[in-house]
Amino acid sequence: MYEFRNDYNSVGHPKVVEKLMDQVHVRYPGYGFDQACDEAKEKIQAKINKDVKINFVPSGTSANILSLTANLKPYEGVVAAESGHIVNDEAGALEAVGHKVVFVESQDGKIKAQALKDYLDQEHDFFNILPKIVYISNSTELGTVYRKAELEEIYSICKDHDVTLYIDGARMGSALMSPVCDYSLEDLAGLCDIFTLGGTKNGALFGEAVVFCNKDLGENFHYYLKQHGVLTAKGFLMGLQYGVLFTENLYFENAKRANAMAQKLVDGLKEIGVDFAYPPESNQIFVALEKDLLDPLAQKVTFEDFGPLEGDLECARFVTTYHTKEEEVDGLLASLKDLL
Amino acid sequence: MYEFRNDYNSVGHPKVVEKLMDQVHVRYPGYGFDQACDEAKEKIQAKINKDVKINFVPSGTSANILSLTANLKPYEGVVAAESGHIVNDEAGALEAVGHKVVFVESQDGKIKAQALKDYLDQEHDFFNILPKIVYISNSTELGTVYRKAELEEIYSICKDHDVTLYIDGARMGSALMSPVCDYSLEDLAGLCDIFTLGGTKNGALFGEAVVFCNKDLGENFHYYLKQHGVLTAKGFLMGLQYGVLFTENLYFENAKRANAMAQKLVDGLKEIGVDFAYPPESNQIFVALEKDLLDPLAQKVTFEDFGPLEGDLECARFVTTYHTKEEEVDGLLASLKDLL
Amino acid sequence: MYEFRNDYNSVGHPKVVEKLMDQVHVRYPGYGFDQACDEAKEKIQAKINKDVKINFVPSGTSANILSLTANLKPYEGVVAAESGHIVNDEAGALEAVGHKVVFVESQDGKIKAQALKDYLDQEHDFFNILPKIVYISNSTELGTVYRKAELEEIYSICKDHDVTLYIDGARMGSALMSPVCDYSLEDLAGLCDIFTLGGTKNGALFGEAVVFCNKDLGENFHYYLKQHGVLTAKGFLMGLQYGVLFTENLYFENAKRANAMAQKLVDGLKEIGVDFAYPPESNQIFVALEKDLLDPLAQKVTFEDFGPLEGDLECARFVTTYHTKEEEVDGLLASLKDLL
Amino acid sequence: MYEFRNDYNSVGHPKVVEKLMDQVHVRYPGYGFDQACDEAKEKIQAKINKDVKINFVPSGTSANILSLTANLKPYEGVVAAESGHIVNDEAGALEAVGHKVVFVESQDGKIKAQALKDYLDQEHDFFNILPKIVYISNSTELGTVYRKAELEEIYSICKDHDVTLYIDGARMGSALMSPVCDYSLEDLAGLCDIFTLGGTKNGALFGEAVVFCNKDLGENFHYYLKQHGVLTAKGFLMGLQYGVLFTENLYFENAKRANAMAQKLVDGLKEIGVDFAYPPESNQIFVALEKDLLDPLAQKVTFEDFGPLEGDLECARFVTTYHTKEEEVDGLLASLKDLL
Repeated sequence: MYEFRNDYNSVGHPKVVEKLMDQVHVRYPGYGFDQACDEAKEKIQAKINKDVKINFVPSGTSANILSLTANLKPYEGVVAAESGHIVNDEAGALEAVGHKVVFVESQDGKIKAQALKDYLDQEHDFFNILPKIVYISNSTELGTVYRKAELEEIYSICKDHDVTLYIDGARMGSALMSPVCDYSLEDLAGLCDIFTLGGTKNGALFGEAVVFCNKDLGENFHYYLKQHGVLTAKGFLMGLQYGVLFTENLYFENAKRANAMAQKLVDGLKEIGVDFAYPPESNQIFVALEKDLLDPLAQKVTFEDFGPLEGDLECARFVTTYHTKEEEVDGLLASLKDLL
Repeated sequence: MYEFRNDYNSVGHPKVVEKLMDQVHVRYPGYGFDQACDEAKEKIQAKINKDVKINFVPSGTSANILSLTANLKPYEGVVAAESGHIVNDEAGALEAVGHKVVFVESQDGKIKAQALKDYLDQEHDFFNILPKIVYISNSTELGTVYRKAELEEIYSICKDHDVTLYIDGARMGSALMSPVCDYSLEDLAGLCDIFTLGGTKNGALFGEAVVFCNKDLGENFHYYLKQHGVLTAKGFLMGLQYGVLFTENLYFENAKRANAMAQKLVDGLKEIGVDFAYPPESNQIFVALEKDLLDPLAQKVTFEDFGPLEGDLECARFVTTYHTKEEEVDGLLASLKDLL
Repeated sequence: MYEFRNDYNSVGHPKVVEKLMDQVHVRYPGYGFDQACDEAKEKIQAKINKDVKINFVPSGTSANILSLTANLKPYEGVVAAESGHIVNDEAGALEAVGHKVVFVESQDGKIKAQALKDYLDQEHDFFNILPKIVYISNSTELGTVYRKAELEEIYSICKDHDVTLYIDGARMGSALMSPVCDYSLEDLAGLCDIFTLGGTKNGALFGEAVVFCNKDLGENFHYYLKQHGVLTAKGFLMGLQYGVLFTENLYFENAKRANAMAQKLVDGLKEIGVDFAYPPESNQIFVALEKDLLDPLAQKVTFEDFGPLEGDLECARFVTTYHTKEEEVDGLLASLKDLL
Repeated sequence: MYEFRNDYNSVGHPKVVEKLMDQVHVRYPGYGFDQACDEAKEKIQAKINKDVKINFVPSGTSANILSLTANLKPYEGVVAAESGHIVNDEAGALEAVGHKVVFVESQDGKIKAQALKDYLDQEHDFFNILPKIVYISNSTELGTVYRKAELEEIYSICKDHDVTLYIDGARMGSALMSPVCDYSLEDLAGLCDIFTLGGTKNGALFGEAVVFCNKDLGENFHYYLKQHGVLTAKGFLMGLQYGVLFTENLYFENAKRANAMAQKLVDGLKEIGVDFAYPPESNQIFVALEKDLLDPLAQKVTFEDFGPLEGDLECARFVTTYHTKEEEVDGLLASLKDLL
């Protein structure tokens, strides 16, 4: 089987697991108040080059939901694209903590700045919730990557309306290392109020780093984590992992490797004439295939079916990772070519 | 420093971490629907020897809160001892998902059966919540262990009142391996409706196994986990860890080792004339020390201060683990003796 | 000023207030467990001619939210039209109790049966909420009224998918008395699982009657009301009011009167060439006016601005009630004619 | 039957209902943004003689829960006496909106200042909730009334700890008119941050006035009301009622009348040798009766059984109101005397 199902299908990067093995006889204080976490935060901070506040959270959904709810009053809500992860992939987690999401028009997973402005310009009163945070993801759920000018425009609109901009970076590594990306991690910290640096999909066993660029936000954030059951007792585990990922650029190297395999796949797909459902810009590649190709392809390749497109076409998603091998890409392409 | 602060201060048992290292190039499906989880569940099931339903949950608070809320209507509540973990140590997590806890009298962390019966016998109407689940922990937050007759009596009262009995087993290994424990894991499955088998404090990096002995409970439990952000993407990590812990009795051996070190500590404490705040029955030992001994002791030993007792006495907790060394126990005893 | 702002702008029907005055020296038990409530329920039940369960709730939002949440598990959600009252007019109240709303295509405020079927036919898994209740309103927020065949089709789809159909009847009187309505209150009880009979907008000071046609639903409903702070201490007040409204058909006479005034208004609007934004079928009439007419009109008439339509048109809503006078309709028409 | 069951057993004071009748043809704007509300607030404000913010809320539980939650972060909680209304009589409503209550020692329904100080002085960290609001009721659930010095001491402790003091005044009229009360409504506004002036139990059909003495609190309070379904559409109804109650001192006259009947009852009870369960200081009188007297007494008098006291004694509650008649008090006393 050639593995393109997702980017959370293996234990973690060998260097990360080796570090855990290496530390197996060391003792740490609990709940993330330890030296491993401190050092990891310093390393991340050094890349960001701005005075930020960082918390480690064990899962992507927790990182999203708690970053949002910790900065919302009960009557305030979130603005997102209809394709947003908080909309379709978190089982109503945001609503479960009491908040409503409203949609603005988007394209290929990216919010349209004008639609956002139009919505925020409207009068908002007590009949509906007050919009207070804009949620975007980067790379998006459809594999696309925001350009610097797009982020600048969205952030500017947010600031004009006293609204917080939150970027879900479960796949931020792949976004930042994308060939289309025209900003660095350091730049990013000036383009939003809060962002996350996902570990789970980029070499860690688990863990997301929530970065509060605006340090007025996220007051007492560890209380929210504790109350939600995700202030990890062995918090040092995330410190150790992020320490490895941000040593010698492993976090970025992993993402680059995933993107390189995605690029190889994109080139091959173009060659054999497969169309893309969305612009291929990161480690998630969405293609349009004849519906009856999917079953035979699934005999040789793992991937996800993203539902019907126009006509008889179906959307399939192939995901590459830091451990994807060239032979796997070749194998997928050959399998697909056979079926066309 | 001699380490007696808690039992979640190291990465995990070396065999567990080795297993993760060993599997670093294997690919797994997501969200716990994988072979590693299936095999681990089979191994646990084999020890229980009863048809049960098992879910892995990454943290103790999540395991508690979700096991409770998944079996409660909004107007139903939980009965617990005032010392219960859900009462004092989870930052209001149960209330945050909407449920109220009511207390019944307890001694040394254990609910008194008669007090439970008296409370459940009362008429309950719509002015207050309806009691629907009894929460106990074993070993308790004060280190004590329920006897079989106590569990039988409590469970019988629960069944008479159509109330569920849930046992928080964050330290179930230590409870079952306690010299005072007169039942096995297999017995336990007949003594309650739901219990957990904690991994985090007994060799795993993270993870609790929630065991539904009454399979009518916990319907669609993975939906609750997903909505709460704790349906771990790399669920196979818990499958791998529990697989190791339930191979060759490692789970029980770890607990035995922790208890043996606790027993050595208890013997030594008795010798030097230190009094116990609660009966020492598992890997948490609570002692009564003159208040002004704590600061000097903290120069040599890590432990937790559990607050004032009568007179000038203060309660200190020493926790042993599977990796506690005899020299550490000796060191603690010598340090303490010097101060007396 | 000619009053067309809404249908909750006066104390209540004189006969209702007279009844309260008349009973001012009588003593009643609390929380709705009294003879006045029993008698009112019997009167409503007699009109419905089916064994139903009835609860009185003081407000429309409470009636909606609690009827929904009392029949949902935390991971289940509600399907509605984007124009639904629970979507736009309740300040995120449903999300505040933990539930998500998903939209299906609608026209003029009415859910399209085919769109509902398509959505419910999809596979629903743990990545998103499970649809469990369909919410519609009748008359809708846009003043339209469901036909019998439409309700039959929607209810049939619901039953095929084991989904509950809830009808928000804050304006059910006007719907049932609409010239386009081809079913009775008795029929209605066979066309859905739960519906409400709104009092606040049809003669009562406050109060909605929630009617559970499917008596398996709404178990312990008064607990939900109590916990939400809306199990009215003086519940008998709603019993007294509904008793009056369902004596000598006052409930229906009030609605007929409101509809008659709406019909007079519709006829007049057609005469002077004003277009309707949505089909005028009940006591809420939505018209399309040149944007710059609204300010001068507001000097003489109270109404609500429902936002921009195409081009330079703006949507204005005129609402009639049982106490609207013919002179007021004439006054509105004359004021408008002057401006055209 | 002599009626002493509760103080919410009749429609409302005749003058209040007359006012509603009188206004039956007047039109008002919705949601409490009307002249009747404005005028009523001015009248209340005039008695308070301090710049406060006032909101009308239809029920006591809503007034309590929303006043508390609107001033709490999710990880903050409430301190109360174990006898508190929010603890025993609101069906877990506060927990349902996510907040935990912790208890401090109390006597006869009143919090002990020293116990409050001791609790607030403790270190509070992320293992449990942070105390942020102290809830007391006046008169208390046991009929007692705080003295000025007691309120001053409690409020001073609250301010020292940056904690808000909230007084549930569902029966504030009776408290302020109590012979033991040594402060006025004007004084009260300097003795706490928020208090309520209950209408439901003192002449209104429904309605509580929430008074924010500290105007920094309760920001956007009407959003909380709307989201909770209790921003009454016909908000003017509460404006009209409070307008009557605060004209010519009716609010205080009603309470005085209730207290006078209570005093008459107390005198009679003393004469016939009945003991009080708690000090009789307001319109709720709690007595200790032989258990087997209750059934025969219930043949002639309505009252509530408050459960067992020591020995064979049972606690019975008699409640007087502004409409209690002298003959009723005589009747109760005679009935009781017959049984002794």
